Amino acid sequence: MTLPIPVASEADVLARLAHSSQSPQSPVWPLSRFFSWLVERAAARAFTVEQMPLAKMDQWSTDSETGNIGHRSGRFFTIEGLKVESDLPWVTNWVQPIIVQPEVGVLGILIKEIGGVLHCLMHAKMEPGNVNVVQLSPTVQATRSNYMGVHAGAAVPYLDYFRPNGRSRVIVDVLQPEQGSWFYQKKNRNIVVETDDDVEVGEDFCWLTLGQLTQLLHWDDIVNMDTRTVLSCIPSAEDVDARGESTLRGEPRSFSEEIRHSFAALQRGHHTLREVLGWLSEQRSRRVVIQRRVPLRQIDDGGWRRSDELIAHESGRYFQVVGVDVVAGGREVGSWQQPLLAPIETGLLALIARRVDGLLHVLVQARIEAGSPNAVEMAPTVHCQPINYQDRPPEARPRFLDAVLDAPAESIRYDVIQSEEGGRFFHARNRCMVVEVGDDFPLEAPDHYMWATLGQLSALLSHGSYMNVELRTLVACAKALGQRS
Amino acid sequence: MTLPIPVASEADVLARLAHSSQSPQSPVWPLSRFFSWLVERAAARAFTVEQMPLAKMDQWSTDSETGNIGHRSGRFFTIEGLKVESDLPWVTNWVQPIIVQPEVGVLGILIKEIGGVLHCLMHAKMEPGNVNVVQLSPTVQATRSNYMGVHAGAAVPYLDYFRPNGRSRVIVDVLQPEQGSWFYQKKNRNIVVETDDDVEVGEDFCWLTLGQLTQLLHWDDIVNMDTRTVLSCIPSAEDVDARGESTLRGEPRSFSEEIRHSFAALQRGHHTLREVLGWLSEQRSRRVVIQRRVPLRQIDDGGWRRSDELIAHESGRYFQVVGVDVVAGGREVGSWQQPLLAPIETGLLALIARRVDGLLHVLVQARIEAGSPNAVEMAPTVHCQPINYQDRPPEARPRFLDAVLDAPAESIRYDVIQSEEGGRFFHARNRCMVVEVGDDFPLEAPDHYMWATLGQLSALLSHGSYMNVELRTLVACAKALGQRS
Repeated sequence: MTLPIPVASEADVLARLAHSSQSPQSPVWPLSRFFSWLVERAAARAFTVEQMPLAKMDQWSTDSETGNIGHRSGRFFTIEGLKVESDLPWVTNWVQPIIVQPEVGVLGILIKEIGGVLHCLMHAKMEPGNVNVVQLSPTVQATRSNYMGVHAGAAVPYLDYFRPNGRSRVIVDVLQPEQGSWFYQKKNRNIVVETDDDVEVGEDFCWLTLGQLTQLLHWDDIVNMDTRTVLSCIPSAEDVDARGESTLRGEPRSFSEEIRHSFAALQRGHHTLREVLGWLSEQRSRRVVIQRRVPLRQIDDGGWRRSDELIAHESGRYFQVVGVDVVAGGREVGSWQQPLLAPIETGLLALIARRVDGLLHVLVQARIEAGSPNAVEMAPTVHCQPINYQDRPPEARPRFLDAVLDAPAESIRYDVIQSEEGGRFFHARNRCMVVEVGDDFPLEAPDHYMWATLGQLSALLSHGSYMNVELRTLVACAKALGQRS
Repeated sequence: MTLPIPVASEADVLARLAHSSQSPQSPVWPLSRFFSWLVERAAARAFTVEQMPLAKMDQWSTDSETGNIGHRSGRFFTIEGLKVESDLPWVTNWVQPIIVQPEVGVLGILIKEIGGVLHCLMHAKMEPGNVNVVQLSPTVQATRSNYMGVHAGAAVPYLDYFRPNGRSRVIVDVLQPEQGSWFYQKKNRNIVVETDDDVEVGEDFCWLTLGQLTQLLHWDDIVNMDTRTVLSCIPSAEDVDARGESTLRGEPRSFSEEIRHSFAALQRGHHTLREVLGWLSEQRSRRVVIQRRVPLRQIDDGGWRRSDELIAHESGRYFQVVGVDVVAGGREVGSWQQPLLAPIETGLLALIARRVDGLLHVLVQARIEAGSPNAVEMAPTVHCQPINYQDRPPEARPRFLDAVLDAPAESIRYDVIQSEEGGRFFHARNRCMVVEVGDDFPLEAPDHYMWATLGQLSALLSHGSYMNVELRTLVACAKALGQRS
């Protein structure tokens, strides 16, 4: 008995997505031109970003009663407090600042067939929290207010393609959760639509095949988080027939082929898809996560200290809330100020990969997400900020953290830094790794962990409530590892 | 009888250069971080460049007698006229504008051993003529006035390492000619020095191994011309023993290995090094090139038209002289205006490569260079702006141009756009190609052409008067093709 896997209506679309994924070059331009273009757009856009005191930010103020930080217009987002109770072994309750933005944003990629290959319209977009200012973003990143056309002001280019008006066909459309450690119950709509229109390409936009886009995941901090999550949700239809069965035969002869075999195993691996889902449901029913929004004033109880300058934890760990001053340069005019959440250190997101029954599997965990709408989500094998556990005894350190940090160089298959959303987070980056282990690595998974094929994860991404954004990043990165060279 | 090949004093240096060339990663940072950093520097530097009328440029004026364009200070460069007589079959004399800058500049790369591997200190440098504003430049690009410390003003960082003062050891030091079509007898000093000092790394600078730097040649418009020429002059000591003999055995099994075998053949190929040099000398003695500087006013005779806006040829071909207005953005202040030479179209630089006696050779031509100090230099097989020959009959088109343009995709081994110097040229770019041909391609070279190994070209680059800057670019690009994967 297999679970039905929802796919875009036409098998034809899957075949064309697969063709685009296998197209490392494009009739529009060679990938070798990409970085020159991105550097040129960065130079032309010319924004500078400097940290500034929270208390001096123009247009942002502190509520005298709650201490919450918000914009005078009531728009954008607020910084509030969150109290969490959980069954984590090393901390059963805590309080923290959190970003509250109670609306669903749109992360949309517009695709179009050019020269017989599907291309994605990508945006070289400036965000104040990006370490490099400009990264490659989906065609649109829009708030619900943008989408509903509530506010006046500059329209978001191409947004109309993502409204139901017959100008485009929907390929992917799924709500996915954002960073549960930093956002309160935030979800975004991950959407891919295809058009046949003649699309005018703005000077900050470019067309890339899925194969070209995926190759860029080998470089640090280029493909932004919003692009990665949308990419992860695009059905992995390479090497899979109409019934969802793998078309690959024989033994894989390279790690890249192992990855492709794993992506082609949608229904069956060491566990069936139903067993994987059952494991997650059981975890969700058993684990304790109680979230309670509290006034930001109350975070003092948890060791958080607020000054005119910033909000920080007395231990020096976790993250800070800081202000930034953004100035547009060149011949543009414009500037603004805003708060951002700034992690203390680069995080670590790692997937451990092992052959099980001749097929590559990855080890996922059921992780408590402080602010997530799902409370427990599937996450990478290791998902933490290592600095938070620096002086902890081995039993209080995240499981498999040391296995990943001590992995021999030849077993590290992917090791690239990727950035989190630069519109809300300041220099928030994760070291993303895929580490291959041998048959001596225990097949029996600890209670919170499960072996799954990449195809199973990919199939579950048609649904919005299973995987955290960090695991979605690693699924996208694994696609890069599986590319034909 | 073999020619002695000048090398850096110690065999040890050659071995360490080879080690750096074979280091695709570095203890300082992984290459995957590079483009994020370059984008970040581009965004931070934030210059905008716009074309403007020549006649309105601040600080630049036209000499009332000669019509030459120069800076009021007498510094920088002038735009004058050049009259050329040659034995080219399709044009025996012509007149053109040319850039006159009668001094030798310094293009210097500072190297230092870090973690046991030599690293190059590279500069993310803004130049107004770059299509993408910022490219990767040597540690210093300095004029003779900078070098001599004649003028007051901001010092060029790191320049002191390139003065004889015991802080560094010279590895490469050779004068090489610049673009002969656009510069009047311009040479630059290509210099590489090694230091043991603790070097403070400025925020626009980064350390890269030779292997990392070479990999970047696979991307359009990232490694600037000044870097490429210095790279080409670094002795190719991989796979070569102390006597200059190849240490590679057996048949090459890939094109990359063919390239390495060719680079390891320093002395002997189809011709000896002495025969290659003899051919060039004979060509130089036989070809006619008479250069005469004339007032810029006289270019009218050759079909050049000058307006307040720009200088252009009435045929719409060749190049224009334009003005640009440069404004620094972000939080920096500063702006200036200057003339630049703007080619009408992207040029084509191609090497045809063929196995001769089991060893890969490239076909070089002895090319007349209008303004070069050498008049005739070794150049790529094809070196032209194709647009200039669009409507010419086959016999008046550059030899091998059509062979390259019509080459089947699988024979094109390298096809990347590289930029010329953005401090003097506006959006001047060349499509750089290496095209492999089979045994059916005639081995007998036409009069102006010669087969040589890449090792022979590399050995000749210890001398400054043989190869034009465009061929030096292709030698550097060939190094990228020969990298071990």
